[in-house]
Amino acid sequence: MSTISMTPIGRVMSARDEPIDDAWDSVPTTIVLDSTQLKPDAAAGLDGFSHIVVTYVFDRVGEDEIERGARHPRGRTDWPKIGILAQRAKNRPNRIGITTCRLLSVNGLTLKVQGLDAIDGTPVLDIKPHMSGFDPRGAVREPAWSRELMEKYWD
Amino acid sequence: MSTISMTPIGRVMSARDEPIDDAWDSVPTTIVLDSTQLKPDAAAGLDGFSHIVVTYVFDRVGEDEIERGARHPRGRTDWPKIGILAQRAKNRPNRIGITTCRLLSVNGLTLKVQGLDAIDGTPVLDIKPHMSGFDPRGAVREPAWSRELMEKYWD
Repeated sequence: MSTISMTPIGRVMSARDEPIDDAWDSVPTTIVLDSTQLKPDAAAGLDGFSHIVVTYVFDRVGEDEIERGARHPRGRTDWPKIGILAQRAKNRPNRIGITTCRLLSVNGLTLKVQGLDAIDGTPVLDIKPHMSGFDPRGAVREPAWSRELMEKYWD
Repeated sequence: MSTISMTPIGRVMSARDEPIDDAWDSVPTTIVLDSTQLKPDAAAGLDGFSHIVVTYVFDRVGEDEIERGARHPRGRTDWPKIGILAQRAKNRPNRIGITTCRLLSVNGLTLKVQGLDAIDGTPVLDIKPHMSGFDPRGAVREPAWSRELMEKYWD
């Protein structure tokens, strides 16, 4: 299939400079949007929402590190071998990360957030408001390993 | 900022061929993943999850249709003028769509889903499992217009 070209609309500024698996909620993070890509009012009204959905790129993952089949999440052999599309690991095709985080403040094109699991310098592709209308509809089911994996992820 | 190149990992097959704003839940939809991009076990274990997060591209939106500032959602002048990053409209920088939908079945690299608001032929960039650990943390707040906009979106 033909490739699609994306231009980052901003960057993450974070106190965390290395990919660490856990305790993301305590890391102060700012998203600086690019004024050459966006007009000054591109984030107008965003402060009406408590949370935003940030789409970013795991840009430090090399092409040769991308998994296209299955593997144990976090290399944990006590968890089942799982397809890369059934986990949220960074070594994935197109290297896309998506996280819903708290929006603390909006100042023009500068957003202060809490709970964004992206390291310093990460390119941002999109910001969307979190609308409850896009929450999962119907009962939610997930396997035991994914709950276990998330236990210390934020705190 | 330098551009980032993405290769679609699959396509949406849908009974809906035109961008219509509402009633998406009733549209039968299949995601056909690309066996040249992915190994046969790339979706192994995905059926342990009730919902998936689909990242796709609004590829019928032309470059000249992209909004980089603010506008009334759906052209509704009774709603406030809102920055493109504070709405989920398709005419956005990088044209990325993200939807959490129900996963009905997995058959190798073919996924049947319900509630995916993407039309026939839409390129898919990523599939992630919906993990409750990535739900918004803390109280959720959103403006009145966004609740109103979503009223008939799915049903």
